[in-house]
Amino acid sequence: MIKVNFNINDKNEIVNYANRGMSLECEINETIKYLLENDICLIYKKATPIKVVKVESNVIKEAYFNEESTLDYAGVYKGKYLDFEAKETDQTTSFPLKNVMPHQLKHMENVIKNGGYSFLLITFSKLNEYYILDAKILLDFIKENERKSLPLTFIKEKGIKIDRLLNPPLDLISGLNKLIF
Amino acid sequence: MIKVNFNINDKNEIVNYANRGMSLECEINETIKYLLENDICLIYKKATPIKVVKVESNVIKEAYFNEESTLDYAGVYKGKYLDFEAKETDQTTSFPLKNVMPHQLKHMENVIKNGGYSFLLITFSKLNEYYILDAKILLDFIKENERKSLPLTFIKEKGIKIDRLLNPPLDLISGLNKLIF
Repeated sequence: MIKVNFNINDKNEIVNYANRGMSLECEINETIKYLLENDICLIYKKATPIKVVKVESNVIKEAYFNEESTLDYAGVYKGKYLDFEAKETDQTTSFPLKNVMPHQLKHMENVIKNGGYSFLLITFSKLNEYYILDAKILLDFIKENERKSLPLTFIKEKGIKIDRLLNPPLDLISGLNKLIF
Repeated sequence: MIKVNFNINDKNEIVNYANRGMSLECEINETIKYLLENDICLIYKKATPIKVVKVESNVIKEAYFNEESTLDYAGVYKGKYLDFEAKETDQTTSFPLKNVMPHQLKHMENVIKNGGYSFLLITFSKLNEYYILDAKILLDFIKENERKSLPLTFIKEKGIKIDRLLNPPLDLISGLNKLIF
């Protein structure tokens, strides 16, 4: 079976995601834009923390990326606090845990402690499969295992599969409903 | 009456805020650090959105501040989503509304629509007074008034006064409890 995904862009052209290989970031951006415009959910990409050293007439001339960023996205859905990281892998049987930094795990713990929802949105790009994995499950796995990767079988069992849609590209809301409610 | 505020820093020295004129940003930073470390609440300063144009060997050589930033701080308290802006004024009878940009008001609306809590944390620096003003009240005021500033009398009536403490410097939590619960 050939899976074809398409959408209509601003110019009313049909855009075929499968062919053009839309990046995960683009798919999320289009999804969160749709969700905001339709008053469903507010999610935004957090800005990358940058340490600015020199500015000349409003132009930043010297600055550095700060490695201690937290997670990519935050937001609010029906009053619930969300904080998540989107990760893509070209592996087909597992998700390498080196993709998630210790300070990001710490941030997930802090979110959970304070009653928020944190998760990974994992894309297996070669399989064209998307999963939400609750940070609680991720943190437990890391505590209980020496493994350096999450097996796909584990993610399939414990995670929430996210379907591709026409518009928005990702059915994030069904996933959030399963995660939260 | 002379009001003296002090705190103990990392080196066990007494720090007198009233004398050293600790900035609002520092006070908030110390407050949110305390709240996080004591598992009370997770609040973080959002990174400033910067458009990076040129990077050479990990050093950003050309970049621009993006004017469309939202609000300064976000976080989660007992599961509730928070999103707020901290503003200081040296006025003593009103808070000038030019301090809040239209896209920030729009962001506040989006937060409220999705069940989150948004507010201004207003400091009258010459009076040494701090108030939380719910964004719902702010947005209603702007809709119903032609005024270019919020009178202090209005803020005193409709806002939530935040006390200075020893540690953390601001009693933000009492204010949040009044705002939310």
